[in-house]
Amino acid sequence: MDSCQVLVPAGPPTEQVASSKEALELARIANDEMAKLVSKYPGRFVAAVAILPLNDIEAALAELDRAINELKFRGIFIFTPIYSYVKGGKYPPSGCKAINSPELIPIYERMAHYNLPIWIHPLREAITPDYGTEEKSKYHIWQLFGWPYKTTVAMTRLVFSGILEKYPDLKIITHHCGAMVPYFERRISVSYDYAEMRLNRKYKQGLTKHPIEYFRMFYNDTAVSGSTPALMCAYAFFGAGHLLFGTDMPFDSQTGNIAVRKTICSIEQMEIPVREKKQIFEDNVRDLLRLPL
Amino acid sequence: MDSCQVLVPAGPPTEQVASSKEALELARIANDEMAKLVSKYPGRFVAAVAILPLNDIEAALAELDRAINELKFRGIFIFTPIYSYVKGGKYPPSGCKAINSPELIPIYERMAHYNLPIWIHPLREAITPDYGTEEKSKYHIWQLFGWPYKTTVAMTRLVFSGILEKYPDLKIITHHCGAMVPYFERRISVSYDYAEMRLNRKYKQGLTKHPIEYFRMFYNDTAVSGSTPALMCAYAFFGAGHLLFGTDMPFDSQTGNIAVRKTICSIEQMEIPVREKKQIFEDNVRDLLRLPL
Repeated sequence: MDSCQVLVPAGPPTEQVASSKEALELARIANDEMAKLVSKYPGRFVAAVAILPLNDIEAALAELDRAINELKFRGIFIFTPIYSYVKGGKYPPSGCKAINSPELIPIYERMAHYNLPIWIHPLREAITPDYGTEEKSKYHIWQLFGWPYKTTVAMTRLVFSGILEKYPDLKIITHHCGAMVPYFERRISVSYDYAEMRLNRKYKQGLTKHPIEYFRMFYNDTAVSGSTPALMCAYAFFGAGHLLFGTDMPFDSQTGNIAVRKTICSIEQMEIPVREKKQIFEDNVRDLLRLPL
Repeated sequence: MDSCQVLVPAGPPTEQVASSKEALELARIANDEMAKLVSKYPGRFVAAVAILPLNDIEAALAELDRAINELKFRGIFIFTPIYSYVKGGKYPPSGCKAINSPELIPIYERMAHYNLPIWIHPLREAITPDYGTEEKSKYHIWQLFGWPYKTTVAMTRLVFSGILEKYPDLKIITHHCGAMVPYFERRISVSYDYAEMRLNRKYKQGLTKHPIEYFRMFYNDTAVSGSTPALMCAYAFFGAGHLLFGTDMPFDSQTGNIAVRKTICSIEQMEIPVREKKQIFEDNVRDLLRLPL
């Protein structure tokens, strides 16, 4: 099982490309297809992760139940922010929603109940410009840095909306290794203490621990394109128990070969105990997904 | 001179709060005042850095010359993005400009000529929301993560606009230690190779080196609120020669005491040669500002 993978759906999200009625159909097709792949290639895939029609929460919950119970999926996948499809509307829709929007709470409740993780993946398009005087984002900025920024924003919203407080067993897996959080870990702590004590902001209200402790609850893939210094920075903040081997395959100039090879190499070069490397490569995902040994 | 500081202006930028005519007056007042402080407290301040009226480039160049030649300033300070004041207009103006806007090129040319650095400081306001369905940015996100994001965008624009190619002697000093660049260093390399080879994007056109080599040209303060793992990550990418002791004083709950104390401590705890720590604390800034020994 050494080279087994978890099958994670690629975008675009169903709610962005289809009406709520069609989105459910689309999600079912995608999930059924993934279930077939897992069943056909058991030596390649250990499990799959469900895509949901998030523009209809009742339908999403039903599909979530079906995916976990019938298809034996081991988690779900959410794009953040959450866009909704508007027929004939501008693309992407301006009305994007935060990951802590109230209508999504039943999803988190259900996943806490199943005790299975939620993969979050950032979303931003080139047509959102970086400057008010321009028409679109230049030089790939929207994806290269815009995506990790969006992940960071989503993490912050999950922290301060109290979702991680309310569902302490909820497991969220971030893409790109915690995005901006590990590098700015101390800035997070200092900024919220400053905002509270000197600016009298009540961000921490309703939280029983310091905000930084909720940021530490996230699980994170190792997809930093093979940077050992970045992984060491993430390790210092999250610990080995919250890092999971993951790459950006197939998004590199060799259709994923670089991502996989360099990520493996970057973990091997971490100056940490061998057993922690094994945790990152294999044990953590086994525990999180409760896979058979 | 061990505890000497460089006097750097605090915001808001003159071009954001005043018309072009008033902005020059405002910049002159601020620069004169800083010159007085440096002269009055030579044991405390080694030099000051000029603020410029960027809504009038001719006036900005004149004030730049005056600051360097008459006031003996050792650099300039630019907010990014660049906003322009509109009387009675909405605050902040939507028409913010990129740091590589053509009208700013004479500023870079002049600073390359003087061989003195430009400090760049990010700018973003709470009233720019994180989600299209909301009115403003919540939970301090605009500043905590929005600022480093803006710095990263500015760095990318300086790289791909060819400004660092054209002025190889230009010294840019980033706030928050290179922002998102050190942690995502490998992602930068991989993304641009992918964009070129698989998406046929021509971002690299006009650059004679790989984009990542221009990102490496930046100088960076150590203001990551005392995180040694973040500094080690920055060190791995930029090297000791491009890190400069700097804190976020006075922006913490103890009016800067935490920032200064923790930053010193975080550098001392870096696992690097003692002479490189001295470079970061003192030698690099001496070289860059060409200060007397």
